[in-house]
Amino acid sequence: MRSPCGVVALLTDFGLEDVYVAVMKAVILRINPKATIIDITHNIPCFDIEKGALALWGSFKYFPAGTVFVCVVDPSVGSERRGIALATKNYYFVGPDNGLMYLAAHEDSVEKVVVLENEEYFLRPVSYTFHGRDIFSPVAAWITKGVPLEDFGSSIAPESLIKPSVKFGVEKVDNTVFLKVLYIDKFGNVALSTRFRELTKLLEINYGDLIAVSTDKKLEKAVVTRTFADVSPGELTLYENSFGLAELGVFKGNASERLSVKRGDKVFLRREVAK
Amino acid sequence: MRSPCGVVALLTDFGLEDVYVAVMKAVILRINPKATIIDITHNIPCFDIEKGALALWGSFKYFPAGTVFVCVVDPSVGSERRGIALATKNYYFVGPDNGLMYLAAHEDSVEKVVVLENEEYFLRPVSYTFHGRDIFSPVAAWITKGVPLEDFGSSIAPESLIKPSVKFGVEKVDNTVFLKVLYIDKFGNVALSTRFRELTKLLEINYGDLIAVSTDKKLEKAVVTRTFADVSPGELTLYENSFGLAELGVFKGNASERLSVKRGDKVFLRREVAK
Amino acid sequence: MRSPCGVVALLTDFGLEDVYVAVMKAVILRINPKATIIDITHNIPCFDIEKGALALWGSFKYFPAGTVFVCVVDPSVGSERRGIALATKNYYFVGPDNGLMYLAAHEDSVEKVVVLENEEYFLRPVSYTFHGRDIFSPVAAWITKGVPLEDFGSSIAPESLIKPSVKFGVEKVDNTVFLKVLYIDKFGNVALSTRFRELTKLLEINYGDLIAVSTDKKLEKAVVTRTFADVSPGELTLYENSFGLAELGVFKGNASERLSVKRGDKVFLRREVAK
Repeated sequence: MRSPCGVVALLTDFGLEDVYVAVMKAVILRINPKATIIDITHNIPCFDIEKGALALWGSFKYFPAGTVFVCVVDPSVGSERRGIALATKNYYFVGPDNGLMYLAAHEDSVEKVVVLENEEYFLRPVSYTFHGRDIFSPVAAWITKGVPLEDFGSSIAPESLIKPSVKFGVEKVDNTVFLKVLYIDKFGNVALSTRFRELTKLLEINYGDLIAVSTDKKLEKAVVTRTFADVSPGELTLYENSFGLAELGVFKGNASERLSVKRGDKVFLRREVAK
Repeated sequence: MRSPCGVVALLTDFGLEDVYVAVMKAVILRINPKATIIDITHNIPCFDIEKGALALWGSFKYFPAGTVFVCVVDPSVGSERRGIALATKNYYFVGPDNGLMYLAAHEDSVEKVVVLENEEYFLRPVSYTFHGRDIFSPVAAWITKGVPLEDFGSSIAPESLIKPSVKFGVEKVDNTVFLKVLYIDKFGNVALSTRFRELTKLLEINYGDLIAVSTDKKLEKAVVTRTFADVSPGELTLYENSFGLAELGVFKGNASERLSVKRGDKVFLRREVAK
Repeated sequence: MRSPCGVVALLTDFGLEDVYVAVMKAVILRINPKATIIDITHNIPCFDIEKGALALWGSFKYFPAGTVFVCVVDPSVGSERRGIALATKNYYFVGPDNGLMYLAAHEDSVEKVVVLENEEYFLRPVSYTFHGRDIFSPVAAWITKGVPLEDFGSSIAPESLIKPSVKFGVEKVDNTVFLKVLYIDKFGNVALSTRFRELTKLLEINYGDLIAVSTDKKLEKAVVTRTFADVSPGELTLYENSFGLAELGVFKGNASERLSVKRGDKVFLRREVAK
C-alpha cells in the first residue's frame, strides 16, 4: 500500500454541461486545498458501467503511485448498492461497488476494501441522488489527507466485489477467430476484445501478413502492421494499440465507418496468406 | 468578507472548441502562478444568462470560502453594461452586471459591489469583444493577490444590480400546482421551479403518494420518493434533487423524453391519492 | 530563452471522450508532480493541423513566459515524420514537425530546435501510435524540470521546419477584396484571413462605413464597428476580433448562419459608401 500523493483523478458519466463535476472538485478542495485534481473523462455514456470500467483500466496505471481515483457511474445511487474504498498495491479507488473499478483494481492487486459507513467523513446531510458529492469526493479528499481506510467503515473480502460484464476474450473455430468490438475511439479506431500478442499467436500471423476481416455488414482485408502509418492513407490495418489491445484502424481514415461496426459488435478474423 | 483562498472558478458560455477559456486561464496564471483554477462549466448555451445564473447558484456554495468566481455570459460585451466585482459573506464574483451572478451573490449576502474602472488592473489594450480576457480574469487574479475591491473602481449600491429573469415559483389553483421546468440535466432529470419541501407542503404529499403529472403532450403518474432508485427501472418519480429542488426522474431512464418537455415548459401536478 | 515556469499547456485532437488526454497528464505529473497543466483545447477536428496551428497561434502569447506547449495533432504518428522540441524567445514547444507549432513558434522567434532522439527521456517501450504519451509528454515534463534541449537530441536548422498550409492573406482587385474564412467560433463569428487594420487600410474604410459582403450564397451589408454591440441585435458588423483579425459578427445572433459560410469559404468585401 502506497502513501497518497495528493493527486485525485475523476471518472464519471456526469458530462460537462451540468455542474456536478465542478461541485465534486469544490468539495475536494474544501477538505484538501493542495489536492491536484485530474479529469480522466466525464463523457462516459449515462449508466454505462462497462465503458467506464474500460476507461479506468486503460488509464489508471499511468498515474503517479498514491493517486486516489474517484469513480462515479452509478445508476443505482440511493439503493442498497455499497459505496466502497479500495487500496491496491499502488493506488486508491473510491466509488460504488458495481464493477466500475474492478478491472483496474484487480490488475493492480486489491489489498484492502472497506464499506463507506462512517458519516463523520461525509458531507451532511447526505442526499439520496448525489453520492459523488456527499460521500465519494469527501472520502477521497480525506484519504489524501492521510485518513486510513479502516476509519471509513468495516472491511469486506475482495472476493465479494461485484464484477463488471466486460468480456475480454476470443474464440477460435477452425482457422477463424471470433472477437467483439471493445470500444471505438474518436478517430474511429476499433479496439478488439483481446491483446494483440495473444491474437497474433492464435492466428499465427506476423507483420506484413494479410487477414480477412468480416463483420455483419462488411468483408474487408487488413494488413498486420506495427502502426496504421505503415500503410497508405485509406488502407485498413491490424496493429497493437497503445493499451496493448488488438485494434483495426485506417491510416488517416475511420475504421469503424469502413467496417460499419459499433461497440459490442462481432468481428471475425481469418489469416489469408499461408506461410 | 473572507480573505481570498487562491481558488478561481470559471463559468462561461465559451465552449471548449475555441481557445477563449484557455486564454482566460493563461491570463490568470500570469498574474498569480499559484492560483488553483476550476471550471464550473463552459457549456452554457450562447448568451443564456438564465441558465448560467442557475448553474452558478447550484454550485457556488460548495467551493472553499474565499473562492473568486469569474462569470462570463455576456451578450452585451462592449456596450454600456457595467463590469463589476462583488464581495459576499464568503466569496467574490467578477463579471458583467446582467443578472448572471445575482442569484448566487444574493443568497450569500452581498457586502460590497464596485464597478471595474481602474485600467491599471486590466490587460491593455482592452478589446471590445473579450472582457473575459482583458478585464474579468485579470481583476479576479488581482483579487487572489490581495488587491482590495475599492482599488478597482467606485462602489455602487447592491440594490442597483440587474436581476436575472429566472423564475423560481409555483402557483396553486384548486388542487393543482403549476410549475415550470427550470433545467434538464444530462440524465434527462427534470428540475422544477420550486424547492421539494415547499411542493410537498403545498400538495400535502408524502413519500409513497402518487401524483398526476401533466405537460402539454403527456399525462403520466409519478410516485413521491426519496430517490429514483426507490422504484423499478422505468418508473417516473418525484423527489428532492441534490440542490433541494423538486425533480422528476425515471430510474435508469430519461424523464425529459418520457414527458416530452424542455426547459421553460409548463408542468402541472395534482395529488392522486387521498389520505 | 526563458527558464521553464512549470506550466504545461496541452493542445490535441484527442477529444474528451477517450482517456488519451488524461494519460498524457498522468505521465507529466509522474515526472513533475508540481507541474501546472492547462488545456488549450482537445477538440481540434481529427488530423486538422491547420485548425490546431491557428488555435495555438491565437492563445500561446497569453501564457506565462516559460510555458511548455505540448501539441499533438499527428496524423502520421509512427511514420518518418520528426518529433521535435523548440525553444523560442519566451516559450517551449514539443510535438510533431508537421506545421502544427510553426505559426506560434515563428511569431515568438525560434531560437533552437532539436529532434527527439534520446530514449532515456521517453516512456518505454515507445508505442507506434501514441507519441503524445510516450515521447511528447515526458519530454515536456523533463523540460519543466530543467533538462536542456540539447539533451533530447541533435539540433536542426529552424529553416528546415515544416510549414502549415494556413493561408493568411487578402487580395484586392479593383475595389473588391477577396478573403477566406479562417475559422468560425461557437458564437458563429466569422474570422477572416487578415488583420482588421490591414483590411481597413486596403478598403479605405472607417468606423460607421457600410460594406457589401458577398459569399457563394448570400449578399449582405455590414457596418464597420468597434464591436458587434455597437449595432442593434440582428445586424451584421465587421470589427477587429480579440486576436486582431477582421471578423464578421451578428449582435446576439450567428453570422456564419446568416452568411451560409463554413471554414475555408471565400468572402468578398466592397466598400459601399463613398467618402
